[in-house]
Amino acid sequence: MNHEFYMNLAIDEAWKYQFLTYPNPAVGCVILDKNGKILSIEAHKEAGKAHAELEAVSKALKILNPNLVLPQNANDLHEFICKNHQNLLKDATAYVSLEPCNHQGKTPPCTKLFSTLGFSEVFIATKDEHKLASGGAEFLKNQGIKVQIGICEKRAKELLKPFLKWQKSSFKIFKLALSLNGSALGKIVSSKASRTYAHRIRSKLDLLVVGGETISYDRPILDARLANAKAPNVCILSHKKLETFDKNIPLFGVPNRQVFSSIPNDARFIMYEGGENFLNAFKDEMDMFLIFSSSNLNTFENVKLDMKLKPLYKGFLENDTYGIYEKIQIS
Amino acid sequence: MNHEFYMNLAIDEAWKYQFLTYPNPAVGCVILDKNGKILSIEAHKEAGKAHAELEAVSKALKILNPNLVLPQNANDLHEFICKNHQNLLKDATAYVSLEPCNHQGKTPPCTKLFSTLGFSEVFIATKDEHKLASGGAEFLKNQGIKVQIGICEKRAKELLKPFLKWQKSSFKIFKLALSLNGSALGKIVSSKASRTYAHRIRSKLDLLVVGGETISYDRPILDARLANAKAPNVCILSHKKLETFDKNIPLFGVPNRQVFSSIPNDARFIMYEGGENFLNAFKDEMDMFLIFSSSNLNTFENVKLDMKLKPLYKGFLENDTYGIYEKIQIS
Repeated sequence: MNHEFYMNLAIDEAWKYQFLTYPNPAVGCVILDKNGKILSIEAHKEAGKAHAELEAVSKALKILNPNLVLPQNANDLHEFICKNHQNLLKDATAYVSLEPCNHQGKTPPCTKLFSTLGFSEVFIATKDEHKLASGGAEFLKNQGIKVQIGICEKRAKELLKPFLKWQKSSFKIFKLALSLNGSALGKIVSSKASRTYAHRIRSKLDLLVVGGETISYDRPILDARLANAKAPNVCILSHKKLETFDKNIPLFGVPNRQVFSSIPNDARFIMYEGGENFLNAFKDEMDMFLIFSSSNLNTFENVKLDMKLKPLYKGFLENDTYGIYEKIQIS
Repeated sequence: MNHEFYMNLAIDEAWKYQFLTYPNPAVGCVILDKNGKILSIEAHKEAGKAHAELEAVSKALKILNPNLVLPQNANDLHEFICKNHQNLLKDATAYVSLEPCNHQGKTPPCTKLFSTLGFSEVFIATKDEHKLASGGAEFLKNQGIKVQIGICEKRAKELLKPFLKWQKSSFKIFKLALSLNGSALGKIVSSKASRTYAHRIRSKLDLLVVGGETISYDRPILDARLANAKAPNVCILSHKKLETFDKNIPLFGVPNRQVFSSIPNDARFIMYEGGENFLNAFKDEMDMFLIFSSSNLNTFENVKLDMKLKPLYKGFLENDTYGIYEKIQIS
């Protein structure tokens, strides 16, 4: 198989954790042994946890030596591996969707990992333009590792878009859940896996934005219970004043939650949730759209509006399909 | 990676050619070299062409020796490979979604291919219950090849369902093209890649079934031009008599086409095409549903009916998602 095959595996794996790595970028990594056999396909899963490269290297080492007992903490893990790699990954190959970091951040540099373990080739989809972390490709080359940059670069740049946006200002996504025939109405539309993914995103948000109609009509709690995680702060956009909402609506009872009536300036990762009206009102402000489609048809009205979307990634969650889209710019 | 990883690659590849192999089954095959490196991921593409195993073996040999000039014809190809394999696939591993055939059909037995080339392991998702072709696993074992049956068996059995049905009676599928918000109306809904796949299926059908309303309103040609292939025979189900349709409607002008007003008994692979009314009328007779969903929203009414579907396979065609579904049986 060609380089694109392996890089696409890395990029697809990273997309599965898109948004969940906030404020870090989504990154994927595939490792092959010296004979070209796939050892691991991994991604960065959450800020503070191991980078994609460290995840993939740990998994690969565990496969080659199941007796290895690896530390949980990313820093300890990095250090342990550099000391106990037993040359198991000598002459291995890595495919990474983003240039490996070259600086000591929360975790030691991933470039050091590849050079210490004796990797012979590192394929990189796109360069890291971040001043602090960059220089990884150069470092690897200087260590005698063969480096090639630009495999599947277009997809890798798409993968980075949320990160690049929330780094410099704010990134906004609209979440919509539809039946296969386009209805947002009726009983729970999405699969539990879809709703769990949405709750995991909610737990990472700076802000969840909803409309006043939804609040009054659905009386939601808007928490992240399916992910067993922190409920997000909420902003209710409405003509009604915040004080006039019924304070018995569950969302107001969530401990330590702030509820806003306008979007605070410091919110950098923001998700809007709603139906046709809310989408119509805010679609032009959105950076991306997260749309779940179930496998069921029903007899409810569909969401109606004109919008041409370009899928950046599509995946499956139980019987649902979900897509992460951006609008097609009509020039 | 585990056996399921490779078998899923084989099964996914086979699904891409589902329906196009009629009257043969859809089959996929993945080949790894003796070190576990993936050499090829292939499928049976069309009746009369190479079986999945032969496709995958040819591709693998071409990768190992790009100078090999392989014959086009499946029989010649099989014979050529058995004589000129240069032991390149000695100790290789194959993952096949269906037990390799053990009989001389239109092409020589695939079991012979694996044994002659010196494969060391063959993983099979599900046994072939067809009397003539079966016995492959037993033959391979007798040749000293390690054989394991049952990897991803559930998915492999789903893959075989159309074949098993059209073999014993008739297999019926309903094709529906929707926008992301569930509308079948408006200008061309699906991508060119989706329509081309649909035309390729049309060219394999015994019969394409449409409603009288569609004929009078859309005045279609119902051919397979996007696949540059044979237009199917058509059956128009309508309260109107066949003679009363305007004979200038393009479908009547297709050379060598038969047009029926009821379904002939000998039609074994049949596709229905239509919208809400036609689907509602015939959904209970269908074995499967082929539903294309675009990435665009529009302002048209959606298709409305209650139907819970189970996706057997989902894939992407340009910006569209398509699913092959069966109905969830409510017990």
